[in-house]
Amino acid sequence: MLSPEKISDCVSDAIASISYPDQPAGLYTPIAYTLESGGKRLRPQLTLAVCSALGCDVERAISAALGIEIFHNFTLLHDDVMDAADLRRGRLTVHKRWNENTAILSGDAMLTMATEFIAGAPVEVMPKIMHLFNRTAMEVYEGQQYDVDFEHSNDVTVAQYIEMIRLKTSVLLGCACRVGAMVAGASEEVADAFYKYGENLGLAFQLRDDWLDTYGDPLVFGKQIGGDIINGKKTWLLINAIAECRNEILDILAEDLEPSERVEQVRAVYDRLNLNDRCRALVSDYADKAIHALDGVDLDADARAYFDNLARRSVERNY
Amino acid sequence: MLSPEKISDCVSDAIASISYPDQPAGLYTPIAYTLESGGKRLRPQLTLAVCSALGCDVERAISAALGIEIFHNFTLLHDDVMDAADLRRGRLTVHKRWNENTAILSGDAMLTMATEFIAGAPVEVMPKIMHLFNRTAMEVYEGQQYDVDFEHSNDVTVAQYIEMIRLKTSVLLGCACRVGAMVAGASEEVADAFYKYGENLGLAFQLRDDWLDTYGDPLVFGKQIGGDIINGKKTWLLINAIAECRNEILDILAEDLEPSERVEQVRAVYDRLNLNDRCRALVSDYADKAIHALDGVDLDADARAYFDNLARRSVERNY
Repeated sequence: MLSPEKISDCVSDAIASISYPDQPAGLYTPIAYTLESGGKRLRPQLTLAVCSALGCDVERAISAALGIEIFHNFTLLHDDVMDAADLRRGRLTVHKRWNENTAILSGDAMLTMATEFIAGAPVEVMPKIMHLFNRTAMEVYEGQQYDVDFEHSNDVTVAQYIEMIRLKTSVLLGCACRVGAMVAGASEEVADAFYKYGENLGLAFQLRDDWLDTYGDPLVFGKQIGGDIINGKKTWLLINAIAECRNEILDILAEDLEPSERVEQVRAVYDRLNLNDRCRALVSDYADKAIHALDGVDLDADARAYFDNLARRSVERNY
Repeated sequence: MLSPEKISDCVSDAIASISYPDQPAGLYTPIAYTLESGGKRLRPQLTLAVCSALGCDVERAISAALGIEIFHNFTLLHDDVMDAADLRRGRLTVHKRWNENTAILSGDAMLTMATEFIAGAPVEVMPKIMHLFNRTAMEVYEGQQYDVDFEHSNDVTVAQYIEMIRLKTSVLLGCACRVGAMVAGASEEVADAFYKYGENLGLAFQLRDDWLDTYGDPLVFGKQIGGDIINGKKTWLLINAIAECRNEILDILAEDLEPSERVEQVRAVYDRLNLNDRCRALVSDYADKAIHALDGVDLDADARAYFDNLARRSVERNY
């Protein structure tokens, strides 16, 4: 299997080599701005890593890997419009730097670009990959819709929340892994195992995100700690607190408090319910599930170490 | 070839048979609302008509035809957000009936649905149809971007305007025709001929739209006459008037006039420049070009009559 550095370089080179028409600049400049702004590039790395771990030349998977990364960036672009977010990866969001119409239209074009890169998958697996990609995209929109619906409800169950983040975040990681396996010509069983790996990795990542927003180190996390509490965002922590201390937590949220005061009071409830440890334990469970999903897959030591380390990092990461 | 009524029924039945998941309703209800709201269904009818004219069972083309119609409706949905339009086909637009975020997300889902229907084309032609569809979609976004860019410019040439409407409107009609030919297994020459037919038909349609907005019969047209003039929209008529009577027309547009007064003054300039007749002559030219694009194609009398009549109707239509 290629080294993690090689895989990362492959992805960076491929993204840097995307060419954009010059005109109309109002359409293509925001797309280049979005795709050049970085991020972890986790999804395309997963696609190439799975492909390589199964003994296949990663060149065959690069087009589909780019399609998945462009799709992911398209969802962030449109989500930022819907959330009226000002910043993404330390830079102005497209609708702030340009305007909302530019963000809508450039996002649409990114979705079509993503689809065209997916269509560049090896022809013998392209139709199956296209169906998986489209089904996954619909699930991501469904997850986004549930996220919006949950904003206005105090009756979201933990199970509904997990299903929402599975749709909004995890299925795309599952898809990224499965595409790598499909390109490599893997059996359905192996493709399923990698899908489960990605899906559980995604759940671990998202729950760690929830935890970091409340319990992260402000110097390392890079964002204001407590932003989710200030915004009343329905995270795993808040949903559990509502389930277990409904009146107390809703009273705090209804009060007209200074932001720092609200964070402190809500966090005091979380601490009393031991949600700090419980959330970290759950992240760890999902990382374990990810690792064990690959138990039946024949992998050499390098490959197994790669996927194990990635899952373990999701438990420990601080930013 | 199937009769025009049969083709129309095929399209209606196919659209009525699309099924939507129940949940999340916030995502799928606006999609059903949009697709059930009617419209001419010109694009999917073209796909099936070309397929049938070339002796192929239209069932083979229905999935791709639906993909093109859903794509068209997705562009209208997002365009209505960008234009802040309140009404479409006599009903509230999605962003008015629900909200802007719903319109963005439901539109995104429609683009993915459209792609999945395109992926349902017969497998031996699907990859080529998918590439054509994606390229066409990018051209449509480019056309929309030029349309936005032109709003703020008084230096748009007639050639630039024609290129803009070719991208924004005509290429999708060309694509619809070409897909019908591709499904039928036609040669490149025949597929090209049908593409040119659709492209010129689209130019005729759009220029007739421009003409109707100023010179249509208010009782038949169904929209307020002069809306484009009131909004200063860069139509073929206005761009020619700016080119030929720049100061006079820009002075009228800069004045603080009652809407009806502005329409009257601008139309007086159009009349003096004979733009009424010149625009109708141009529509007629494009309709002729559409018809002659099919000169070299072997078609039976029914089929030729169908495509001739459609082109002629684009010249005469009053709504």
